[in-house]
Amino acid sequence: MKTLEVDLGTRSYPIYIGADLIDQSALFNACEKASSLFIVTNSTVAPLYAERLTKTLEKFGKPIHKIVLPDGESYKDWKHLQLIFDDLLKFGADRQTMLIALGGGVIGDMTGFAAASFMRGIRFIQVPTTLLAQVDSSVGGKTGINHPLGKNMIGAFHQPVAVIADLNTLKTLPARELSAGLAEVIKHGAIADAHFLDWIEANASALLACDTNAMAYAVLRSCEIKSAVVSADEREGGIRATLNFGHTFGHAIEAGMGYGQWLHGEAVGCGMVMGAELSYRLGQINQAEFERLSKIIRSMNLPVEPPKFGAERYIELMQVDKKTEGGSIRYVLLEKIGKAQIKSVPDAQVIETLLATGAA
Amino acid sequence: MKTLEVDLGTRSYPIYIGADLIDQSALFNACEKASSLFIVTNSTVAPLYAERLTKTLEKFGKPIHKIVLPDGESYKDWKHLQLIFDDLLKFGADRQTMLIALGGGVIGDMTGFAAASFMRGIRFIQVPTTLLAQVDSSVGGKTGINHPLGKNMIGAFHQPVAVIADLNTLKTLPARELSAGLAEVIKHGAIADAHFLDWIEANASALLACDTNAMAYAVLRSCEIKSAVVSADEREGGIRATLNFGHTFGHAIEAGMGYGQWLHGEAVGCGMVMGAELSYRLGQINQAEFERLSKIIRSMNLPVEPPKFGAERYIELMQVDKKTEGGSIRYVLLEKIGKAQIKSVPDAQVIETLLATGAA
Repeated sequence: MKTLEVDLGTRSYPIYIGADLIDQSALFNACEKASSLFIVTNSTVAPLYAERLTKTLEKFGKPIHKIVLPDGESYKDWKHLQLIFDDLLKFGADRQTMLIALGGGVIGDMTGFAAASFMRGIRFIQVPTTLLAQVDSSVGGKTGINHPLGKNMIGAFHQPVAVIADLNTLKTLPARELSAGLAEVIKHGAIADAHFLDWIEANASALLACDTNAMAYAVLRSCEIKSAVVSADEREGGIRATLNFGHTFGHAIEAGMGYGQWLHGEAVGCGMVMGAELSYRLGQINQAEFERLSKIIRSMNLPVEPPKFGAERYIELMQVDKKTEGGSIRYVLLEKIGKAQIKSVPDAQVIETLLATGAA
Repeated sequence: MKTLEVDLGTRSYPIYIGADLIDQSALFNACEKASSLFIVTNSTVAPLYAERLTKTLEKFGKPIHKIVLPDGESYKDWKHLQLIFDDLLKFGADRQTMLIALGGGVIGDMTGFAAASFMRGIRFIQVPTTLLAQVDSSVGGKTGINHPLGKNMIGAFHQPVAVIADLNTLKTLPARELSAGLAEVIKHGAIADAHFLDWIEANASALLACDTNAMAYAVLRSCEIKSAVVSADEREGGIRATLNFGHTFGHAIEAGMGYGQWLHGEAVGCGMVMGAELSYRLGQINQAEFERLSKIIRSMNLPVEPPKFGAERYIELMQVDKKTEGGSIRYVLLEKIGKAQIKSVPDAQVIETLLATGAA
């Protein structure tokens, strides 16, 4: 097992990475001071891991409740968040209650926001069971829900007290979701570590086969990169926004298709191709670098061709994204392979990019 | 005009107290760096002050939008919070948008929670137009909405960038709401400053007549007491909970009657009589002190007789209150006049208190 400390002063917390961690009570020690424990999970993950986790938590001798939500991004809304609050109140949760998010990014984001808002803030533990959640959404404290007019528009920064990434849960992941998670792994290489991108390229088949050693390194290095960025800029005043590489285009794809049609990681994968194309058009990376990155993304069985919404619709969808400031869209670009930058770009070059990628 | 600084490190902010402050653009200077301004108000306050405030804000040359909610505690729910998010997104709000809460405690709490959650946090200014909001809810950063199973169960700590308390807005306040605000003024004396309680007792008629000089002092001293407590304990780990004197019983009254039947301040006034009765039964204050406090509360035209729900129902309603910890209810009591304390009390003595006050 590897342990990584996310350094955020009084809000610091450990990330544990390894196999069968769900069974290790010691990792859940923060539950000792809790009044009650609520596992929040979904209908896909519950039959696989909820019983094992419950057994692990029983050692603390606290009341344990289970809240099971339907599975999918389309349920990441107020209505389903409310179901968490309903059960918390029905079963007597108080300020010392601990929530445990058992599932992917949707469960983590919703449980985290429920923890941020319930009685103005209670503690929670992340037990991410998808690769996307292990390498991205469970680290960094971003929580929230979607609004019909935009993704993650309502939320909070709320750090977990621990992240417990059990690599064996990835073995039950559908191939499509594994690929979606690998998109974020690639992203970490592209924006912050060219050597890591080399390693990903060389280990593509091991990663696609969910080889434990390869996966352990991919998760660890991703969490290291992400947590270093988050430690430097917890509330996204600056550098943290580089983690959104591929996300401005990606969110437009997700919103335009209707949440849940494309997986988040799929949209990010395709969004990175578009972001790389834009970086190439601005003369920041060369054609070979653009093509290599696209090839790595494609090699993980991720879509690289965006849906053809047309330029006007893309720009409209991106305008509503949180990365707009005073009306102008801020793009995350590659300054070079392994280094990201954020800037506004004239619409003309964005439109060229949309045309070149087949989006318009 | 008086200025008071709430000392919270990087989240410090000024409270301005005086007449006709709504017209003074300089007090709203934080709007200079905003991309757009959204006034959030209600259907009662909008016709009185929204136009004046809009005129004041026009000096900043930013787009100004107005969101008007229905008036009342019964609308402090998710459905109406959602109306704020809907308009923010419809009219292109971004992370540099400033919200301005123009109204009483409900508007302040909802606008504050909208600001806390929209895009994971934007800035807001409080312009409290009720006495309750000026002396209590607009200071300290508690924001939130109600849940059918409990008051303020969903929310966040989110500090405003300024509080602008225009004393002249109190002149349009219905007598019942003025009294409700005076309950919190009395509370500040009872829990923290015996001399202030003497002053309140001596100036009861001036306060009830909304005399500007008397009100200026009552608001200033209340804000001083509250902000000192909040500075010492922003997230209510300890001493801040003393501000909840009268609130455990009071919330039970509000919830039991159905939100909106009793005004919050009325429930707190009556809750303080119950809290004082309990303090007397525990031998912490004497009968004369209990009677004096009840008399001051009654002198402000506040109800001092609780609704007769019965002991079981009261305890059930109080159990769900946030001040329970691990199942046992934490009461805010008077150690003496001018000093509060927090402790658990055996149910037997609580039941005696409920019987003695006519609640059971």
